[in-house]
Amino acid sequence: MPHVKQINHVAVVVDDMDKALSFWRDALGLDLHELRDVPAEKSQVAFLPLHGAEVELVRPTSDDSGIAKYLAKRGAGLHHLCLEVDDIEAMLKQLKAKGVRLINEEPRVAADGKKYAFIHPESASGVLVELYQI
Amino acid sequence: MPHVKQINHVAVVVDDMDKALSFWRDALGLDLHELRDVPAEKSQVAFLPLHGAEVELVRPTSDDSGIAKYLAKRGAGLHHLCLEVDDIEAMLKQLKAKGVRLINEEPRVAADGKKYAFIHPESASGVLVELYQI
Repeated sequence: MPHVKQINHVAVVVDDMDKALSFWRDALGLDLHELRDVPAEKSQVAFLPLHGAEVELVRPTSDDSGIAKYLAKRGAGLHHLCLEVDDIEAMLKQLKAKGVRLINEEPRVAADGKKYAFIHPESASGVLVELYQI
Repeated sequence: MPHVKQINHVAVVVDDMDKALSFWRDALGLDLHELRDVPAEKSQVAFLPLHGAEVELVRPTSDDSGIAKYLAKRGAGLHHLCLEVDDIEAMLKQLKAKGVRLINEEPRVAADGKKYAFIHPESASGVLVELYQI
């Protein structure tokens, strides 16, 4: 049986990275591990590790990305929840068998080799859930 | 210096607990530790532990609570992010000094003795952030 291991990260969509960092890093005291441009996702991402998990701040760098549209429609705030699993193929198969609507029926592979897939919010209490296998 | 230790929980507001559990517990395989009525918060809460953190599913049991209004306005989905801190009084003081808008300027104490306070989303990239000291 595939298994959810832990929360990998919580992603927050932001419109102003400096303002966001002034809260998450400067006021709350989280560590900024990296601030990276991710052209493939038309965004800039701040990674703030937190005891094996992470808060990720995502700022769209173009108006035509999914995340830019989300920001325009819903405003800044919690965007998705990423769960680490031990076997993403088996988990996707299990979810499909249970009638869960998937955005990615097969895992995608990131530049760093990580496998990931998104579950549709419609099946997940309105939450955009990402699965990671590291 | 006060310190954020880890993500304590991610709370999801749901309108239908059975449907929510059919995803989070039955399809994804999370453990349902407890399903509890919380009359003080006019809600029913499912606690699904995950490697030291937790996913909490919150269903309003009355139409006049804050969470019921949130559900009516925004629909089901991610509601708040709770971070565990080592010293909540010192953290609230630090946040206030940095100009962060707090919902609770002093910690509140839950029935189980846990201290908690909410930060206003306006200061936190649109995220309702809860602080816990256990």
